[in-house]
Amino acid sequence: MIHLDKFIRDIPNFPKEGIRFKDITPLLKDPRAVKEALTQLLELLGNHTIDKVVGIESRGFFFGMLIAQELGAGFVPMRKPGKLPYTTFSEKYELEYGFDALEIHEDAIANGERVLLHDDVLATGGTAKVACNLIEKLGGEIVQCNFLMELSFLNGIEKLQGYEVKSVLKY
Amino acid sequence: MIHLDKFIRDIPNFPKEGIRFKDITPLLKDPRAVKEALTQLLELLGNHTIDKVVGIESRGFFFGMLIAQELGAGFVPMRKPGKLPYTTFSEKYELEYGFDALEIHEDAIANGERVLLHDDVLATGGTAKVACNLIEKLGGEIVQCNFLMELSFLNGIEKLQGYEVKSVLKY
Repeated sequence: MIHLDKFIRDIPNFPKEGIRFKDITPLLKDPRAVKEALTQLLELLGNHTIDKVVGIESRGFFFGMLIAQELGAGFVPMRKPGKLPYTTFSEKYELEYGFDALEIHEDAIANGERVLLHDDVLATGGTAKVACNLIEKLGGEIVQCNFLMELSFLNGIEKLQGYEVKSVLKY
Repeated sequence: MIHLDKFIRDIPNFPKEGIRFKDITPLLKDPRAVKEALTQLLELLGNHTIDKVVGIESRGFFFGMLIAQELGAGFVPMRKPGKLPYTTFSEKYELEYGFDALEIHEDAIANGERVLLHDDVLATGGTAKVACNLIEKLGGEIVQCNFLMELSFLNGIEKLQGYEVKSVLKY
């Protein structure tokens, strides 16, 4: 039996003072832990059919690709500004100081396609909400938002009301 | 029969004037093309045994994770400065104007482990060479450097002399 939480390393004061960062690199470097996390992510999805898996830059790429390939679905990277080379749809979101944005290629998702949104962590939910908006702008239907970890005390699930939200590990 | 080069989109003048960028997102969004690319990447490796697959941020994460899981090897992200939360080894490299750097966690690779370095594109080879240096600083033995694409006219293979270098597609 593999306990996934043993593969998550707490890093105090990263990326800044007062934040306790959940480091997934110990998990990534153990192939049995990766397999178990993938299995559990797929179990969260149940019998849903998925056309596209959207992974958020860049830690959402790790399991996003694995999930997509397991499901026989396409993978779509949702990226920070200036990284995607083709025509994009973009949406800004507020940070503590200033703004950031996410971008998606305009041809990444076809109208009516069934989409799984994936990222490694659900924190405040701000990034995930913007990702959902962009997917829907392209006509995608969001079937589930799933995460390896949810930082429940940040209450990100409130920003994602109306969506099915699932996580493997909750803190 | 899947022709992978049909899934690579040329983007003129990205990221800047005069550069023709090879966009792999059409490939990523087709699960059969991803499977074929993964199969071909594994074929490049032949019968080598691998302990760790190192993927370079961030497009090296896509197939790096898939390769690692297929091989039953661990995955190690090699990242840009400030992204890895634990103690890192770092090495700078020169850009056209100024410097950039790559980082790896000090505990990512154990002494004597057999390593596959993966990235999506081999261009000038500058990034890959720095990645190799960091892997060797940790005591890793580089078994192969493999790439989805090689831009042969940039002659990156010269910077990687002494290593086994393989690519699925050559331009």
